[in-house]
Amino acid sequence: MSGTPVPRPRRGTGASTSGRPTLSDRCARAVRSRPFEVAIVVLIVANGVVLGVETFPHLGTAGPVLRWLELAFRVAFVTEIAIRLLAYGRRPQDFFRHGWNIFDFLVTLAIFVPGLHGDPALLRVLRVARVLRLVRFSPGLRTIVAALLRSLPGVAGFLALAVVTLYVYGMVGWLIFADTYPEQYGDIGRSLLTLFVLLSLETLPDLIEQGMAVSPWTLLYYVSYVVITVNLLLNILIAVIVNSMEEARRLEMTERLAPGYDEDGDGVPDEVDRIALTQRLDDLRAVVAELERELRIDREDGHARQGTGRPSAG
Amino acid sequence: MSGTPVPRPRRGTGASTSGRPTLSDRCARAVRSRPFEVAIVVLIVANGVVLGVETFPHLGTAGPVLRWLELAFRVAFVTEIAIRLLAYGRRPQDFFRHGWNIFDFLVTLAIFVPGLHGDPALLRVLRVARVLRLVRFSPGLRTIVAALLRSLPGVAGFLALAVVTLYVYGMVGWLIFADTYPEQYGDIGRSLLTLFVLLSLETLPDLIEQGMAVSPWTLLYYVSYVVITVNLLLNILIAVIVNSMEEARRLEMTERLAPGYDEDGDGVPDEVDRIALTQRLDDLRAVVAELERELRIDREDGHARQGTGRPSAG
Amino acid sequence: MSGTPVPRPRRGTGASTSGRPTLSDRCARAVRSRPFEVAIVVLIVANGVVLGVETFPHLGTAGPVLRWLELAFRVAFVTEIAIRLLAYGRRPQDFFRHGWNIFDFLVTLAIFVPGLHGDPALLRVLRVARVLRLVRFSPGLRTIVAALLRSLPGVAGFLALAVVTLYVYGMVGWLIFADTYPEQYGDIGRSLLTLFVLLSLETLPDLIEQGMAVSPWTLLYYVSYVVITVNLLLNILIAVIVNSMEEARRLEMTERLAPGYDEDGDGVPDEVDRIALTQRLDDLRAVVAELERELRIDREDGHARQGTGRPSAG
Amino acid sequence: MSGTPVPRPRRGTGASTSGRPTLSDRCARAVRSRPFEVAIVVLIVANGVVLGVETFPHLGTAGPVLRWLELAFRVAFVTEIAIRLLAYGRRPQDFFRHGWNIFDFLVTLAIFVPGLHGDPALLRVLRVARVLRLVRFSPGLRTIVAALLRSLPGVAGFLALAVVTLYVYGMVGWLIFADTYPEQYGDIGRSLLTLFVLLSLETLPDLIEQGMAVSPWTLLYYVSYVVITVNLLLNILIAVIVNSMEEARRLEMTERLAPGYDEDGDGVPDEVDRIALTQRLDDLRAVVAELERELRIDREDGHARQGTGRPSAG
Repeated sequence: MSGTPVPRPRRGTGASTSGRPTLSDRCARAVRSRPFEVAIVVLIVANGVVLGVETFPHLGTAGPVLRWLELAFRVAFVTEIAIRLLAYGRRPQDFFRHGWNIFDFLVTLAIFVPGLHGDPALLRVLRVARVLRLVRFSPGLRTIVAALLRSLPGVAGFLALAVVTLYVYGMVGWLIFADTYPEQYGDIGRSLLTLFVLLSLETLPDLIEQGMAVSPWTLLYYVSYVVITVNLLLNILIAVIVNSMEEARRLEMTERLAPGYDEDGDGVPDEVDRIALTQRLDDLRAVVAELERELRIDREDGHARQGTGRPSAG
Repeated sequence: MSGTPVPRPRRGTGASTSGRPTLSDRCARAVRSRPFEVAIVVLIVANGVVLGVETFPHLGTAGPVLRWLELAFRVAFVTEIAIRLLAYGRRPQDFFRHGWNIFDFLVTLAIFVPGLHGDPALLRVLRVARVLRLVRFSPGLRTIVAALLRSLPGVAGFLALAVVTLYVYGMVGWLIFADTYPEQYGDIGRSLLTLFVLLSLETLPDLIEQGMAVSPWTLLYYVSYVVITVNLLLNILIAVIVNSMEEARRLEMTERLAPGYDEDGDGVPDEVDRIALTQRLDDLRAVVAELERELRIDREDGHARQGTGRPSAG
Repeated sequence: MSGTPVPRPRRGTGASTSGRPTLSDRCARAVRSRPFEVAIVVLIVANGVVLGVETFPHLGTAGPVLRWLELAFRVAFVTEIAIRLLAYGRRPQDFFRHGWNIFDFLVTLAIFVPGLHGDPALLRVLRVARVLRLVRFSPGLRTIVAALLRSLPGVAGFLALAVVTLYVYGMVGWLIFADTYPEQYGDIGRSLLTLFVLLSLETLPDLIEQGMAVSPWTLLYYVSYVVITVNLLLNILIAVIVNSMEEARRLEMTERLAPGYDEDGDGVPDEVDRIALTQRLDDLRAVVAELERELRIDREDGHARQGTGRPSAG
Repeated sequence: MSGTPVPRPRRGTGASTSGRPTLSDRCARAVRSRPFEVAIVVLIVANGVVLGVETFPHLGTAGPVLRWLELAFRVAFVTEIAIRLLAYGRRPQDFFRHGWNIFDFLVTLAIFVPGLHGDPALLRVLRVARVLRLVRFSPGLRTIVAALLRSLPGVAGFLALAVVTLYVYGMVGWLIFADTYPEQYGDIGRSLLTLFVLLSLETLPDLIEQGMAVSPWTLLYYVSYVVITVNLLLNILIAVIVNSMEEARRLEMTERLAPGYDEDGDGVPDEVDRIALTQRLDDLRAVVAELERELRIDREDGHARQGTGRPSAG
């Protein structure tokens, strides 16, 4: 979205086009203001507390108060969404370009869908989901969630290997124990569950004892499983550590670079943006290197065909 | 306090104003001396040992000895506080400017409040609290406590996310299990306790079995909870590691910088002061960068209003 | 193999010698192609899923379908091996120079050994082993497996020390508890198993209670064991972390160095090759330094014999 | 010992003084030789295996064989010590300057003290102790043991804080639970044991349940204890990691520096020596800085006395 002249709620676009602020301008300004954000955060936390209080069984006279508070929260949140929608002026569809906006909209308004009121469980789930909106309003939490998601690709390979290991051990466990311990290894699903829980090492003594009753050779199965998976999980941990330190170094390097760069389009240039920036630079560099390499390989192709050259990437 | 000419107990200020050392000067010198510190540390440790011995039920003839020792410790600690108060000369109120001094004063003298003697439990708590004074007298322990407190802001965001996660899972757990397992999920308090204990992974096998009896879908609840929270806790660990390595690097960089800088005003220029110094420098640098950025944004504001500029920080 | 003019399946060697592609050339091209690899990966995953489904006890009408699928997989995998063998043209023996090729060959064809069909368990093990071929086809998994194997030498010393510690504690445990708890410490095997399971800390409370019943001095045994081995395991973890960070630094340094270097001869220049390259460079450097040192020592030998020189390496 | 012309068993000093090698020279050469070391390592491992086999209850005809083997080991080890003693020529007292030599001597010869044969347990302990000699003969294990010992000072502060924390919580636990659960908190010893075992988190669910039966406020006790101690233990881990990385960096820096430096006087210049070397350099640097600082403070002392100077180190 950056670079296009569409109106954005966080920038005072209206003020530059006319002398008198419109309702949309006022809403846009309100949405950007600190008190508005603080108020919403306080409302969400209060909502969470009310939800917590409601779980206690004997509420007595507090019951009606809680029901009134719930109604007040509904009104407040609908008002919030309305203000933020209005801030987009004549282009309300832009509101729905951000994932968090859609989440807010659904969580706040789904409660008014008529059919829902017959299902109190779903109603409660919706109300609990409101608490998750806290993440959206805290820059700290947003940074962390982004960091957690960013660390996923780095460990995806390890996780894939862990899944393959778990599956193979699950199959072998079923082969060994299916008849003796159908409760734990009756089918591949139970095998996988047993082995997943074994990752916490809680069931290790019992399972080893069970296995010893079948054959001392099952020790090999359990010991190798524990050593391999613990090793894999530690390597996932290490991959994340190495990645984090790399990122900390990058953040430091780009501290003055492009301070206003706003990658994720949330109107706030923050750490997430700077990390995204450096990653984009790195990607660019990789593409250039890739191009270079390919050009060179093509240039050297005549030699390569003589049988001694470097193999082309498969 | 540095830079002001108020008398400080750890500097020989008296010697510069008069030829003959006063009582206050002597006390100040004693407080600074190594034997004084060692004596207090020995007393505190001995006090701790006596408290430990008192817990054994059948003491026999050792009982009166322990009571006499306790009286001796009281006298010794009151004397210590008196000497340290006197060291401040005509400005005893300065004594109470340091948190540790206030702690020492309260812990040592509260025992003489008349009403307390009817409550042996509180009396004992006061006596146990004396052992904590060890931290004050050991520069090593003080450095570590300072380091632990310093690492808190870095992980505050992760902890907040962990609390939100715990709360949302607590609510969902109550929705699912409140009727079936009121012992574990009867209200939000029990839910949170159950999920906190689950962080140690001890109760995982039992809870999963419980859940499977309700529905195999509860597996999703427990597995996602374990994966997410373990992931979060590991990221807290990693944040602390990255922070520690950063700090180690800083300490190295400033090893010769400002060797006599005494940030925390405890009279001893140590690692805590140097880290505080570099952090202050960093804060200064950040403020300068912030100012620069704002100035540039204001300068470019005319362009920004044309619709293509960088968004202003919200 | 690099540098020799033998035909390799991943390089279009045939096209350079004649105008018309032979069957071998076509196979070589197919083996190198992305669709071929994707197809094999899909087949292996599907095979794994079928194996998983087969573990459920009451399959009903799905049984014959699964049997037909298994036959289809056999045909597909044999075809795959045939194509990859043909790709080596007139030198099929080169196919068996790669460990993974041999593994593929055995796993795929052992199923046709006549005697096996009487032993359904071994048959199933063979079929489960096919799932492991996934590692071969995923560059990510291959990199990780290589990284895990590479980290072994770095921790071998710690593991050896852990084994010695475990053995000595096993002997001491047998000396102390053999008569009282033959179940746990009856012979060195049971001792080692008890102490291995104790590494998960699960049995710590029970074992300490058992020990306290014998003598409070056994606390010394358990506490020292737990502290020493936990310390050792953490140091193994740390050795791997330090090693990983070193490797990450190396990878970064050599990002542009020798992009087409293909150490492991799998036709794909990847991270494994680059790490191998830097390690080779380091080894070379170490050899040069070693030579230098020896030369210097020989030069200084006259002095060394006077009694003050540096000792020669033992 | 370095730099002095005393005969050392690992250097061929005899060859430089006379033309004909004496018995001492031959022994010194044998001790330095690789086959000798390998033979001893094989003997120690074989001894360990024999000790392990002896623990099995029904040995039958293997019993006499094992007794003969044990006698053979005794002869072999006594011969080894004799050769290594002879290697010191006319200064056998130098043999006892190394800790490991004394350990070897005691472990090998104590078995011949007449009184011991009535006490088979002590005899066995002595025989098990022989296995520990493996550490001495493996440079890898020696390096690791040295590294583990070196990391102790860095974590001593954290350990002291952990001990203070454990003790204070032990006292508080005794205050709260002494009457209700004398089994767990009857005296300070039981309290400390309960809290030590709680570090493994195994007993957390049971203890929290116990505590809830007394008062919900005991949750505060257990939760704070777990959070604080887990935090402390993690910081110990981090301190060791940071220290290890620092050491890895140092090793790299000094790879060419002083290749023949033999700090620990074991005749082999290895990593332990190089790390010791850099640490000595660092200590020297620190002393120089300290001197500089003191000189400067003395120079600036006139200003300092005016009331604005830096405080002198207490």
